[in-house]
Amino acid sequence: MVNLVNLGSVALDTVKTPFGEVKETIGGSGVYFSLGASFFTKPGLISVVGRDFPKTCLNLLEKKGVCLKGVRFSEKKTLRWHAYYEYDMNEAHTVKLEAEIFEDFGLDIPEDYRDAKYVFLGNIDPEIQIEMLERMKNPKFSVLDSMNYWIEKKRSKVLKAIGMVDMLLLNEAEIRELFKTPNFVSAAKKALSKGPKFVLVKKGEHGAVLFSDGVYFFTPGYPLETVKDPTGAGDSFAGGFLGWVAKTDNISEVNLRKAVVYGSVIASYNAEDFSINKLKKLNETDIKRRYQEFKKLVYF
Amino acid sequence: MVNLVNLGSVALDTVKTPFGEVKETIGGSGVYFSLGASFFTKPGLISVVGRDFPKTCLNLLEKKGVCLKGVRFSEKKTLRWHAYYEYDMNEAHTVKLEAEIFEDFGLDIPEDYRDAKYVFLGNIDPEIQIEMLERMKNPKFSVLDSMNYWIEKKRSKVLKAIGMVDMLLLNEAEIRELFKTPNFVSAAKKALSKGPKFVLVKKGEHGAVLFSDGVYFFTPGYPLETVKDPTGAGDSFAGGFLGWVAKTDNISEVNLRKAVVYGSVIASYNAEDFSINKLKKLNETDIKRRYQEFKKLVYF
Repeated sequence: MVNLVNLGSVALDTVKTPFGEVKETIGGSGVYFSLGASFFTKPGLISVVGRDFPKTCLNLLEKKGVCLKGVRFSEKKTLRWHAYYEYDMNEAHTVKLEAEIFEDFGLDIPEDYRDAKYVFLGNIDPEIQIEMLERMKNPKFSVLDSMNYWIEKKRSKVLKAIGMVDMLLLNEAEIRELFKTPNFVSAAKKALSKGPKFVLVKKGEHGAVLFSDGVYFFTPGYPLETVKDPTGAGDSFAGGFLGWVAKTDNISEVNLRKAVVYGSVIASYNAEDFSINKLKKLNETDIKRRYQEFKKLVYF
Repeated sequence: MVNLVNLGSVALDTVKTPFGEVKETIGGSGVYFSLGASFFTKPGLISVVGRDFPKTCLNLLEKKGVCLKGVRFSEKKTLRWHAYYEYDMNEAHTVKLEAEIFEDFGLDIPEDYRDAKYVFLGNIDPEIQIEMLERMKNPKFSVLDSMNYWIEKKRSKVLKAIGMVDMLLLNEAEIRELFKTPNFVSAAKKALSKGPKFVLVKKGEHGAVLFSDGVYFFTPGYPLETVKDPTGAGDSFAGGFLGWVAKTDNISEVNLRKAVVYGSVIASYNAEDFSINKLKKLNETDIKRRYQEFKKLVYF
């Protein structure tokens, strides 16, 4: 049974950073999210890929326990993203995005996904996010991601979608832009007033902050000496977070704090190598070890 | 007896931020450091001011328990700094710096300062920092601050001074510049290899990280909704840090972790109002309360 469903992209990424490059390698928000979650639960992915997408990559995802029943095949080319990072690796510079496959995107939710308790609405057109929420039977905990593109094009729809979910997940610049304030704490409070019980703000290498009524919880970024490629950090973070929540089936604040740390553990490993190279080799012992390191990192 | 001595400036600041402005108000690294430390111990300041510096300001510092025996009066004008901040308040833009008083700076260490166990070498010419260290009798724990100006002009002297102290305190951009690496974790490790047992990296609103052999300790910035003026954040942080260390007379790693949090508490309060307006009203209860909030902020 699929207990956690996520909506996201499957892509072929060409990425260059000061520490190397990869060409047409597996990527996409849905891939990073699903892999992040796969360490804790069996996530179901809703996406679309072209017939040019390597079978070996799909096999790998299935071997990791990702359910691909919700992935539709299209005659168009798989999403391709070409980008580079400079020494300040907080920002990806997009060279080219070939996204014609999304013209072909129809929301196809397999029947046995519709009972899932946990739902992640990856960054996509907010109207599709709303439609998906409406078609899920009775999710216990839903999380919405978005980005500046949608905030600028369809702000009122983004706000409507936010009003329908249990948690909003945005990065710091996005939430400040959405609520038109330079202060992310004020922005998070405004977001809470729109309906979600929790707001989780991603601060890239600086960590993440969870907000709820009267609650702040801060997790730092893990102090990495080797950051080869930050691609997928935010999505694998979300996957680790929601994978832990789905596994434990517990949405108390105390458990969400742990989930934020598990998300940070996954995201920190992800950045240590290109594409999914690190995540595909990661095991439970690695995850537990770094989780304990996070405790030592903040304990006083 | 003065147990903690610091070398720093006393200035008249004119500062504008998106939230207001102040003109010719009390400022300077030595003032912020001393006030931050004054909540925990009686710090001794080494500095120089002009005769134009308001008596009321000196009286205020003395009332807060700051020893001014090491402050020399000069016939030149007090240091004046004129700056503004934009919405991203991590960076101060200097409009004008009137620093002729430093032509008149001679290192005058009162005899009873020379026994102090704790020494803070504020950001100044590294040759003066070295001279001061040589003239202290036998400090138990010395901390060195610096800045990009000295790193660029006198790198080898800065490195020499670093080799003489117990802890290096720099902000993230500075330590990356000093050790010519984009990664602050690598930079901190390189700094440790130069001699200091501890390296403390300030990350502005993103907090601070303490490094020692095999040790990382991270404290986030306190999530403030109101940041009126970040001037003095780094110096009041250092003052709170070293004030706590001097008060407890304990330089174990466990105690330094607590000191980093106390420094963060002081710095977060400092940013809530212009100049020293918040610090001068702060009491022990405020400090204890926010220290506990820091525990809740990171606990999982």
